[in-house]
Amino acid sequence: MALPISPLAPARLEALTPLAGVKIAAGHAGIRYKDRPDMLLALCEEGTQVAGVFTRSLTAAAPIDWCRTALANGAPRALLVNAGNANAFTGAAGIHSVQHSCEAVADMLGLKPAEVLMASTGVIGEPLPDAKIIATVPDLVRSLRPNGWDEAAASILTTDTFKKTARLTVDLDGQEVTLQGFAKGSGMIAPDMATMLAFLFTDAAIDAPVLQHCLRAANEQSFNAITVDSDTSTNDCAFLFATGKAGNKAITRLDDPRVAAFQAALNQLMRDLAILIVRDGEGASKLIEITVTGAESAQAAKRIALSIGNSPLVKTAIAGQDANWGRIVAAVGKAGERAERDKLEVRIGAMGKDLILVACNGAVNPDYREAEIMPAMRGQEIAIRVDVGVGAASFTAYSCDFTEGYIKINGSYRS
Amino acid sequence: MALPISPLAPARLEALTPLAGVKIAAGHAGIRYKDRPDMLLALCEEGTQVAGVFTRSLTAAAPIDWCRTALANGAPRALLVNAGNANAFTGAAGIHSVQHSCEAVADMLGLKPAEVLMASTGVIGEPLPDAKIIATVPDLVRSLRPNGWDEAAASILTTDTFKKTARLTVDLDGQEVTLQGFAKGSGMIAPDMATMLAFLFTDAAIDAPVLQHCLRAANEQSFNAITVDSDTSTNDCAFLFATGKAGNKAITRLDDPRVAAFQAALNQLMRDLAILIVRDGEGASKLIEITVTGAESAQAAKRIALSIGNSPLVKTAIAGQDANWGRIVAAVGKAGERAERDKLEVRIGAMGKDLILVACNGAVNPDYREAEIMPAMRGQEIAIRVDVGVGAASFTAYSCDFTEGYIKINGSYRS
Repeated sequence: MALPISPLAPARLEALTPLAGVKIAAGHAGIRYKDRPDMLLALCEEGTQVAGVFTRSLTAAAPIDWCRTALANGAPRALLVNAGNANAFTGAAGIHSVQHSCEAVADMLGLKPAEVLMASTGVIGEPLPDAKIIATVPDLVRSLRPNGWDEAAASILTTDTFKKTARLTVDLDGQEVTLQGFAKGSGMIAPDMATMLAFLFTDAAIDAPVLQHCLRAANEQSFNAITVDSDTSTNDCAFLFATGKAGNKAITRLDDPRVAAFQAALNQLMRDLAILIVRDGEGASKLIEITVTGAESAQAAKRIALSIGNSPLVKTAIAGQDANWGRIVAAVGKAGERAERDKLEVRIGAMGKDLILVACNGAVNPDYREAEIMPAMRGQEIAIRVDVGVGAASFTAYSCDFTEGYIKINGSYRS
Repeated sequence: MALPISPLAPARLEALTPLAGVKIAAGHAGIRYKDRPDMLLALCEEGTQVAGVFTRSLTAAAPIDWCRTALANGAPRALLVNAGNANAFTGAAGIHSVQHSCEAVADMLGLKPAEVLMASTGVIGEPLPDAKIIATVPDLVRSLRPNGWDEAAASILTTDTFKKTARLTVDLDGQEVTLQGFAKGSGMIAPDMATMLAFLFTDAAIDAPVLQHCLRAANEQSFNAITVDSDTSTNDCAFLFATGKAGNKAITRLDDPRVAAFQAALNQLMRDLAILIVRDGEGASKLIEITVTGAESAQAAKRIALSIGNSPLVKTAIAGQDANWGRIVAAVGKAGERAERDKLEVRIGAMGKDLILVACNGAVNPDYREAEIMPAMRGQEIAIRVDVGVGAASFTAYSCDFTEGYIKINGSYRS
C-alpha cells in the first residue's frame, strides 16, 4: 500500500466522535496487511434498528448472502468487517467462514449469530482465513469503546489512500440528532454499488422499515450515482444503524413530517461519502460532476449521466485537460435514451462556478473559444452539464478522470 | 500520427486485388493529415446491389443520416470517404456538406446524388471543410482504376497503426466468387458499431434484400462482437456492394441453398476484419477472445461476454499478465444476465490451445496452480472461456487489454 495520497483528498474531514449507543474497535488479523489494522467490530445497544442495501451482482460474495438473510429475519446489532480478502467465489467454504466468524462474535457478546452482520473486501477467490479472524475476535471485543471510530474507519481501507468519514447533525422537531459514517472505495466503483463498503450510524429513533426506505432513497443519489471505472463488485453493501439514544420520539411511519429532514440529512451524509470515494478513485487527478437535464425520466437522465461518466474517452480527455465535448455528445448518443441531437446543449467548466456554453442547437456554440475554458480544465473539479432537450427530468452523477495511474494500480494489484 | 505499429499487427495480410465491377482511388484533400491520402472514391458498375448497417447512436453524424436515406430509397453505387473530420454534431451545415460533396461526385460520374454514399471519420464537432473535399473530387474521379485498393485502404485510417484488409473466395454451386474489404478502427470500438468504417465488396450476384440480411447477420458476430473501450461512435457504418460480375446465377431469395455458403464466407471476412480492428486497439498489447457458454440465450451470452470484455479491471489485469479470474467472475455478476454462481466454470489460456480450468463449482479449482498459466499469460493472444451453467447458448467476443498507451493516446488526441 505504498500509494501516494490522492491529489483530490480533502484538506480536512469531519472527525467522528462518540455516538450514543455505539461501541467500536479496530483490530489486526494479518489477513493481507501485515502492519495495520484490518478488522473492525461495532456493537450497538439493544433496540437498535438497522437497514441495509447490497450489490446487485449475481455473483455476490458469501457475506452478502449472510447479511441479506440476517436482515430479513431479525435485527442485527453487531458488525464485523475484514479487509484484504473479499470471501467472494469461495464456494461452501466461504459460507462456513462467515458463519464461524459471526458465531465467534455472537458467543463473546451473548448474541445470536444472526444478530451479527459481516462485510469483507479484498481479493476475490481466495479462501477466507477465518481462523485468523476468529483469533482476533476476543481482542476486538475487549477493545470496544465509544471513541474507536478513527481506527475503525482506517481498518477497512484497501487501495484507498485516505480515510472517508462524514458527520452532521439535524434538528428533528426540536431534538438534535447526529448522523455519521465512514466508507471505503476505491477501484471497482460503479452504480449498483461497488467494492464499496459504507457503515452509517445515527442516534435517532427510527423504526427499521422507515430507515430502510430512507437508506434506499439516499443510496440512489449517492453510492449508486458514482462511478470510477464502471465495474461493480461482489461485496458492496451499506448499513445504517439507528440506536434511538438521541431522545426524539420514535419515527415509526413514512408519512411522519420529520422523515423529510432526516432523509435530507442522510442524503447529504451519503453524498459526502460517495464523493470522497470518487475523490480517491484509483489514479484519479480530477473530480467530475455530471448533471443531465431535460431528460424523459430520472432513470433516463441517470443512464445518460453515467454513460458520460463511464466513457473512457471522456475520462481520458478530462485527464488531458481537453474540454472534448464531441466525446460527451458521443456518450449521450450511445446511452440509448431519448435525446434531441439538434437541441443538445453542453456546458463545461469548474464545479460550483458559471459553466461555459460549448455546444447548442446541434453544433458548436459559435461564440465558444477553447481558450476561455482552459483555466477551468486545469483545475481539479470539473463540471459537465448536458441538456438533452426532451423532458424535465434530471440527475447528477460523479466520476473521475482516467489516468495512467489507474492502469498502473490495476495492472499489478496481485503482483 | 507518429504512433508505432501495434505489436499485435499480423505479420502479413491478404492483398486486395482487382474485383470485377469496381474501380477505386485514393486522394488527398488535406482535411487534417497533410502528408498522406485522406479520401477515397469507389464506383461500382450499374446493377450493383448494396447493403448497409449503421451505428445505433442517437447522435449519429450527418453522413449516417444521408446514407440511411439513400439506402432506403435507391441503389447507391458510388462511395466517398474522408478521414480527419467526422462531420458529427455539425448541425445544418454538416448536412449541407454531405449533400454538396455527394452532388459533386454525382455530377462528375453522371449519377444522382442519392446514388453516392458518404462516410466520415475523425474529430467530432468541427465543420467539415467541404470545399477541400469537392476540390479533390475531379482528381479522385480521374484516378479511379481497378487496382487502387491498397491506397484506398490506407486513406481511411486515423489513429490506426496498420491497414486492415481481408479477402477470400467461396464456391457458390460451382461458381467461385470473391469477397474482399477493408476497415478502420481503432479507438471508440464497441458493440453497436464504433468509429469503425468497413467497406466490403463481392463480385457475387445477390439481390439487395438477401445481401442486407447476410450483412446484418455477419455484423452481429463480427463488428458488433468487438470492444476496445466500450465507446460507440457517431459515425460507424459498414457497406457491402455486390457487383454481380462473378457469373453465378443471381441469388434472389433467402431460402436459396447457396445463401449458407455466402453467409459463412461473409462471416469469416467480417470476423477477420473485426479482429484486425481489435489488434489495433489503441495501446493494445494483447488480443482477448472471450467465449461465454451455458447461457440462457445468445443475447445473454453476448452481454456477459462484453461485460467481461469491457471491464477495465479485467483488461488491466490481462495487461499485467495476471489471470485474475476473480475480476472475470465479478464481470459476469454485473452483466445482469442469469448465471449460476455455484456452477460457474472459468478457463483461461492461450488462444487456440487447450485452456486451463481455473475455477469451477463456485470456487477456485483446487488443482489449479498459477504457475501453469503464466506462459499463456505472457503471450499475445489470450482466451477466456466462461460457462455460466444455466442454458445452452453461447457467444464469442473479442477485446484487447488496457494499457497506459491507451491513456496516452486519448489524453492528448486533440493537443
